[in-house]
Amino acid sequence: MTQAQQAAVSRFPVPDLQDMPEDIRARIVAVQEKSGFIPNVFLTLAHRPDEFRAFFAYHDALMEKPGNLTKAEREMIVVATSGVNQCQYCVIAHGAILRIRAKNPLIADQVATNYRKADITERQKAMLDFAMKVSQTAHLVGEADFEALQAHGFSEDDAWDIAGISAFFGMSNRIANVTNMRPNAEFYSLGR
Amino acid sequence: MTQAQQAAVSRFPVPDLQDMPEDIRARIVAVQEKSGFIPNVFLTLAHRPDEFRAFFAYHDALMEKPGNLTKAEREMIVVATSGVNQCQYCVIAHGAILRIRAKNPLIADQVATNYRKADITERQKAMLDFAMKVSQTAHLVGEADFEALQAHGFSEDDAWDIAGISAFFGMSNRIANVTNMRPNAEFYSLGR
Amino acid sequence: MTQAQQAAVSRFPVPDLQDMPEDIRARIVAVQEKSGFIPNVFLTLAHRPDEFRAFFAYHDALMEKPGNLTKAEREMIVVATSGVNQCQYCVIAHGAILRIRAKNPLIADQVATNYRKADITERQKAMLDFAMKVSQTAHLVGEADFEALQAHGFSEDDAWDIAGISAFFGMSNRIANVTNMRPNAEFYSLGR
Amino acid sequence: MTQAQQAAVSRFPVPDLQDMPEDIRARIVAVQEKSGFIPNVFLTLAHRPDEFRAFFAYHDALMEKPGNLTKAEREMIVVATSGVNQCQYCVIAHGAILRIRAKNPLIADQVATNYRKADITERQKAMLDFAMKVSQTAHLVGEADFEALQAHGFSEDDAWDIAGISAFFGMSNRIANVTNMRPNAEFYSLGR
Amino acid sequence: MTQAQQAAVSRFPVPDLQDMPEDIRARIVAVQEKSGFIPNVFLTLAHRPDEFRAFFAYHDALMEKPGNLTKAEREMIVVATSGVNQCQYCVIAHGAILRIRAKNPLIADQVATNYRKADITERQKAMLDFAMKVSQTAHLVGEADFEALQAHGFSEDDAWDIAGISAFFGMSNRIANVTNMRPNAEFYSLGR
Amino acid sequence: MTQAQQAAVSRFPVPDLQDMPEDIRARIVAVQEKSGFIPNVFLTLAHRPDEFRAFFAYHDALMEKPGNLTKAEREMIVVATSGVNQCQYCVIAHGAILRIRAKNPLIADQVATNYRKADITERQKAMLDFAMKVSQTAHLVGEADFEALQAHGFSEDDAWDIAGISAFFGMSNRIANVTNMRPNAEFYSLGR
Repeated sequence: MTQAQQAAVSRFPVPDLQDMPEDIRARIVAVQEKSGFIPNVFLTLAHRPDEFRAFFAYHDALMEKPGNLTKAEREMIVVATSGVNQCQYCVIAHGAILRIRAKNPLIADQVATNYRKADITERQKAMLDFAMKVSQTAHLVGEADFEALQAHGFSEDDAWDIAGISAFFGMSNRIANVTNMRPNAEFYSLGR
Repeated sequence: MTQAQQAAVSRFPVPDLQDMPEDIRARIVAVQEKSGFIPNVFLTLAHRPDEFRAFFAYHDALMEKPGNLTKAEREMIVVATSGVNQCQYCVIAHGAILRIRAKNPLIADQVATNYRKADITERQKAMLDFAMKVSQTAHLVGEADFEALQAHGFSEDDAWDIAGISAFFGMSNRIANVTNMRPNAEFYSLGR
Repeated sequence: MTQAQQAAVSRFPVPDLQDMPEDIRARIVAVQEKSGFIPNVFLTLAHRPDEFRAFFAYHDALMEKPGNLTKAEREMIVVATSGVNQCQYCVIAHGAILRIRAKNPLIADQVATNYRKADITERQKAMLDFAMKVSQTAHLVGEADFEALQAHGFSEDDAWDIAGISAFFGMSNRIANVTNMRPNAEFYSLGR
Repeated sequence: MTQAQQAAVSRFPVPDLQDMPEDIRARIVAVQEKSGFIPNVFLTLAHRPDEFRAFFAYHDALMEKPGNLTKAEREMIVVATSGVNQCQYCVIAHGAILRIRAKNPLIADQVATNYRKADITERQKAMLDFAMKVSQTAHLVGEADFEALQAHGFSEDDAWDIAGISAFFGMSNRIANVTNMRPNAEFYSLGR
Repeated sequence: MTQAQQAAVSRFPVPDLQDMPEDIRARIVAVQEKSGFIPNVFLTLAHRPDEFRAFFAYHDALMEKPGNLTKAEREMIVVATSGVNQCQYCVIAHGAILRIRAKNPLIADQVATNYRKADITERQKAMLDFAMKVSQTAHLVGEADFEALQAHGFSEDDAWDIAGISAFFGMSNRIANVTNMRPNAEFYSLGR
Repeated sequence: MTQAQQAAVSRFPVPDLQDMPEDIRARIVAVQEKSGFIPNVFLTLAHRPDEFRAFFAYHDALMEKPGNLTKAEREMIVVATSGVNQCQYCVIAHGAILRIRAKNPLIADQVATNYRKADITERQKAMLDFAMKVSQTAHLVGEADFEALQAHGFSEDDAWDIAGISAFFGMSNRIANVTNMRPNAEFYSLGR
């Protein structure tokens, strides 16, 4: 794969696999073997190895950790907030993961456009209300917002998780928009 | 089909096919025969026959008329503006139509999220810039906006078409959000 | 009346009356005989006969239909939402109609600027709160908004009517702003 | 005139004329003799004599001073910015003054709704562009905005005047909205 | 002090002290003797003597008058609203005064950035909620907002004071941003 | 230090130093020895060790890496974007660091309130224009924005750095607002 062919992946340079640090290449190869393709976020961030390592460590700390939020619910947070932030890569890539995690081919397009009308529970809508407030007007978050979560059975640690995912992907949305990070063609149809 | 079963189509009552005025039933049956299912916008608006007739007459006047805009381009306008207006029905239903018209399985998700990053021409981006300004801040539209269209070869009549489609679907977006108009399951996978 | 003289009516071409399709000319002549002048929305839209027909059919379906909303209340919805959308034609033309329908020379200027401070009932303010939410943030409309209407005695069909009028004139506002549709001088003083 | 009868003037207490400090009563009587009625802004602010004096001193310093802006142009600034700030008193009262100053019965309604479509000169539109930026996003005003004024022949002192009027009436708009300051019935028809 | 040296005070001309009208020079000299320096708002506004006089008369009427709001609380209103209006002069100069009035070296930076997280009472947060609504969306202020103040023991006159200060400094923020009014270096460290 | 005493640091639990994982305690002790106090962001994030590690790895990758942006310029980006995001912790803590890095006691308060009026170079204002667009409307970032940076001599890698810092601290701003992360008292006076 030449750099020219990779041009569309990102508006910034994308290194060749063989030129990447060993740990980064190893992670990418592992993803490729599991998924059958390399999601472009890995190639885009490989331009900056230290940021790559911190980004995925943070990602995993929020998305892979044990906790009350299901993996599908975590992806709902990503998809809903990325939709409002108009991040093409995040909506399309995490929309695919959401469909797979939720075993529901319809849910990602619903949540990406307007989660208030999606086929999800009232509890999940309260989760997304909180995530959206963190995403759009975090300076206004106050105790009433935590109480609204508690009324649906969310713990304090769940609140942190929701906020953390919303905040982390807000960063990711901005990076993807600035780098013109291109969603892989595979994501569009996964889980449908 | 009982009213209870139809509850999910719209938060307002949906009439049974046999209770609809003849012309409305005829149009719905024709769509059903062509598409294999009845798009829910037809059932939702059938609650108001006069509005149904005017809505589809207006729709056809803008979407079926001859003109320089291709049918795919008209659907791009619908999808881009409906995305920003957070209209689930319009994004999902017209996203399907856009995929079919453009013979491109990826384009609808791109345009719905952020058309500025989509695989479309600079001319189409200028078209969507104008459509978006009409949709979001029409009071600011001025001659400079028309000149930007002309620079890409759009005629005065094309400008009217772009504005008309943006304005009409802005109305449709609002109706769909207020009625909780539900996208048919068929739309999600059409054209992928 | 030459086309040059009509230039100010719209930034798009305005056909001569004798060149219009018979049904459109007939409607315009009827309005002229009743009102004493031709409102410029008729001349502007006559550039597009099919859109003209659909527009006025839709208009009549919402504004002339039987229902609980008085004709003055329907015009209040038009004037309040057109004010926020900064549509000169709609505020001035429908302001005149509101003054006449409400037999109140002061109400239109009040409602156009800030209906919350207008000499209208609390019930009418609740109606306009709903109309304004449909106009500005329809994606956020939910059951609590319908309940607020019900608390003032509005039926489900009234809610549809309010939303429909708000949505239709949101389209109209955008068309008027894009076409530079000019309010006829007669409207400014009617009903004062 | 009892206080009860004056209730509608303001949501705050309105003093009786004979209870006002002499200088304030004198100014009000002079206005009444000239206009034939007492504009409610005088009665509302008379609740706070020191603020009354400062308010009208400031008003006169901006609106009565010599300078290149005509009196009609100063009123255009008031009406355009008050429209966007949704201030009923200011739009209706200063709309009347604008009609009189400009000897134009149509101009106030045009400028209040969308000055970009009003029958005013390009120079006046540039003046209102600057006034609107001061009103809505003053933190973004920079040298390019002053240069746009200069290109239309406005001096540095004109720029100060435009900004001062926009800023002063922004204050006035807020006070009028908080006090529910009611426009006198006389204003609606003056100058039409 | 030459005009060239004063250039940084304001983007508009600043008169020499000896060229100012006697009353204005007297006020400035008095401030200089008390503070040890001349705050630049005095020099900037001295370009316009009548506006200078009205501005400070209004300022004193709101900030020096007797009333239930402490002087520190009045400065909190200035600092919080000026922060959101992005007014450098007002945040820095009144931040200094707030630190002094409140005898608290930390409070100004807290209130300027996000008063909801500041070390102030719930009553003071309610005061600032009202001030902020007046500053940003005065057209939406209604009786519920006054009731929220009353629940914290604020009188009707306190409500007027809060609104008046918010509105007056909204004007001041706009003037400072347009004139590039420069905060004196002394303010940054006062009261820390 | 008991948990009760730590309550003000964060609205979430803060672990005792001796209960933290060794690597986290080591980093905190090192910071304490260097700074003389423990910045509360370390204590707040210690509640989540994996997120702590990723957060500071990311922070260091952006703020400590070699590159054309000076350390002071990187802090300007943090302070300007945190000001608009209304993040008290970030403005106050990074304001202190900016004063130290820039050896300028005035710059932080200027940049936090309105960098357009700050004593910085045109090149630095262009840097902050880009950072602010990434922070507030990243979906609109396009090639014209990169060209504006290039015109001031910024490289492609500088653009990535600016965007990365803006995006990372946008995440940090949201976390600080949700956790009520309290700025240490020491930060307010450092570098003044």
